[in-house]
Parts: sequence; C-alpha cells; structure tokens
Amino acid sequence: MRLKVDLLPRGSYPDVVILVDVLRGTTNAPILLEAGAQHIYLTPSLKTARLYAQENNLLLVGERDGVPIEGSNYPASPAELRNLSLERDVMYMAQSTPQAVRNLQGAKHVLLGSFYNARAVVKTAVELATEEIAIVCTGHDGNETLEDTVCAGFLARRIEKMKEVQLLDAARMAMALVRAFPDVQEALVQSSTGQQLQKLRLYEDIAVSSLISQTDRVPKLLEVIHHEETPVYRFQ
Amino acid sequence: MRLKVDLLPRGSYPDVVILVDVLRGTTNAPILLEAGAQHIYLTPSLKTARLYAQENNLLLVGERDGVPIEGSNYPASPAELRNLSLERDVMYMAQSTPQAVRNLQGAKHVLLGSFYNARAVVKTAVELATEEIAIVCTGHDGNETLEDTVCAGFLARRIEKMKEVQLLDAARMAMALVRAFPDVQEALVQSSTGQQLQKLRLYEDIAVSSLISQTDRVPKLLEVIHHEETPVYRFQ
Repeated sequence: MRLKVDLLPRGSYPDVVILVDVLRGTTNAPILLEAGAQHIYLTPSLKTARLYAQENNLLLVGERDGVPIEGSNYPASPAELRNLSLERDVMYMAQSTPQAVRNLQGAKHVLLGSFYNARAVVKTAVELATEEIAIVCTGHDGNETLEDTVCAGFLARRIEKMKEVQLLDAARMAMALVRAFPDVQEALVQSSTGQQLQKLRLYEDIAVSSLISQTDRVPKLLEVIHHEETPVYRFQ
Repeated sequence: MRLKVDLLPRGSYPDVVILVDVLRGTTNAPILLEAGAQHIYLTPSLKTARLYAQENNLLLVGERDGVPIEGSNYPASPAELRNLSLERDVMYMAQSTPQAVRNLQGAKHVLLGSFYNARAVVKTAVELATEEIAIVCTGHDGNETLEDTVCAGFLARRIEKMKEVQLLDAARMAMALVRAFPDVQEALVQSSTGQQLQKLRLYEDIAVSSLISQTDRVPKLLEVIHHEETPVYRFQ
C-alpha cells in the first residue's frame, strides 16, 4: 500500500484521504460530533453556509482569521466546543477546510483528522484503504503549514507501524519532522497560524489542538449536496 | 528582509534565489567551476545541449536517472568531477536543474547552492539581497525531496544567524528538519534520489554531496542565450 503525504492539496486521490487542518478545522470537526451533532456540514461559501443553516435549522459555528463570524452560535474554538452539549446538527464555517475538501474530488473516502482523533482516524483509514492512504495538509492560503505537516508526519508514523507501506520523500520529511518536535504543541506554538492565535490570546485552543487521541469520532464525508451550485459537504 | 523556502519552484521571485538540487545538480555545478571551467552552461533540452556544446567546443557532462549520457566526456558524478582539472567550459546536462532555472524568471540573482558551497552561497546571497532571499528546492518530477529540503533548512539557519529575517512556515519546517538530521548525510541516504544512487552503487557521490563548505565557488546566472528558441543558461 502507498502512504502519501501532500503538504498542500494537489494531484488525484484514488482511495482514502485524511485531510488535516490542525488549527483548527479538523480538530473542531470531531469535537463537534463528540459534543452531540449527528452531522456536520461544510461549504466554501459563507453565504451558502448561512442560508443552508437557516433552511435546515443548523447551529452555526464559524471563524475567519481566528475571529468568530457574526451570527454564529459558537466560536470555532476547540477549547469552548469540547465543553458543549449540542442537540442540533452544525454548519461549520471553517476557513480553509471546505475549499480543501473541494480539491479532493476523486477520493473514495474523505476523513478529517488531527492530533485530537489521531488513533481513531488512523484505524479507520487503514481499515478502509485498499491501495493508498493520502494524508493531505490543508495549508494556509496556498502555503505549507508547520502544524499540518507535523500532524501528517505523526499520523504517517502510526500508519507505518500498522501496515507495510511505500513512501515518497514528502512522507519521509513529515515523519522526520516529528522527531524535531517531540512535544507537538511546540510545533503549533511556532507555526504562523499558532502565532496568530497567540496574538488573539487563544492559548487554550493551541493546547487543546495538541492533545492526542481524545476522541474516537472520525468525520467521514457522506454526501455532497449542491445548493445553488455551491457544494455543501455532509460529514458524519 | 524576507527569508523564504519553497519546497518546489513556484511563485515569483523578486530578488535573490538560491536554487538547491543537492543530488547532484547544484553540487556538481560549483565543483565544475572549481575544477577549472570558466563558465558552465545549462539547458533543459538534451538536443540543444549537444548542439550548443559542439558549436562552442564545450565539454559535455551529463546524466539521466543517475546514468551518464551517451557522448558525455564525464559522468555527472561529484566524486569523479572533483578530481579533474578542466581546461574548457562545460555544458552541464543536469536532469532537473535547468528546468527549475526556467521556472525562476523574474529573479534578479540566481545562485546555485548545496552543502558543498554552503558558506559561500549564503555569504553571496546575503551580500546581494535587498528584500528577499528565496531558497528554492528543485524537487524531482514535481515532488518535494528530502535532500533538497534539508539543505534548504541548513542554508536558511545560516542566513538567519547573519540577518534578521521574516519566516514563513515552509522555512521553519526546513530549518526544524535539520534538527532531525544532525548528520546531513543520513538525509541523503534516506531520500528517494539517494536510494536510487545507492542502487547504482554511487555511494561516493552521496558522501561528497554531504560535505559542507568545500569550495568558495558560487555559480551565478550571468546570461540567458536563446538557441533556436531554447534557453541556454550561462553561469559563472
């Protein structure tokens, strides 16, 4: 089996993709399921997000550049979200994740992964994969991010222990990078996104996003709904 | 000043670029100057390389997939080239380097760098730069390579010691990766390209490409010559 790490979304994905957006898209996603949402919805358009949420009685959770979106019920803060008990499904207005999902067309299975659901997402990926697991980093504005790469390396190392895999150099790099950050929180603190969160005093979000294997929930793409030509992705 | 690392050539480069192709393009290039060539020429087309070399009485040095090209005077082996004494200029038919140079248009200064000329290329780049030093990894067939990334990190760490710089995450990643390979030769041995060279028993090439600051020669792009519409890059 091939084990691939893409430091940014690109190329084609024939089989299983683990999409990684540690700060904070794919950390929040399993937390929202854990907090009680049956489904979470993502879409690249804010307008569609608001409209679709209204039409379907969804909670709104959202951020732009680390700041809560007007009209959202909760901020996209893992530190806050993990203390909630939700009784409705959620439209999650993550900044980079939905656009990244859009760039994964072709994949048979799209899973959302992070440190927070590391053990579970690795287990699910290994069970589903027949030919390839691609760990795809979301990055930020077309640039690689430190936190996503270290997380990709962290997940790749766990997969390599479970399966015999062929590796390309990007996977080797990400896996070696984990050795340079024995405390993964340090990578999050040093990253550009982490520095932006620290300016906003969201220290607790960095801490929670560094926690490992806190939940067994693995958001999995079930359906792409087309809402006035904009895709809405339903995860469960 | 900005210090940028691109794990593959992309984007635009306003100022100084250090192009890195450790195995073996940008290791051989300073070695060829050190061995006595006044100029070295690179071009993405093999046909142009042969024709231009013939017309201009140049030595031919070349490889494809680690194997010497038919008709070349010397193989592209740093271990062999560094023992030579050349009395003519060289057409260097490196595999990935010329195409990468082609993708750098816009840059004011293009330097070829590797471990082998690390100290000198860093010094030259810092002297020339007014706004940005971009360390650009050549990669292989559109994929990031371990050896280029570690070398980029190695050069970036030295630049950071000399100048106050702003960093993006790719630079941080490359710099952190150096910590994971305190012996840089280990990165070359583990890389895909390194493994290919080991299959060809070119162990000595890996060893020589891991040597640090062996020469003060820094190949610098002087001129782009258009030979029947194909660019020929003259370095000195």
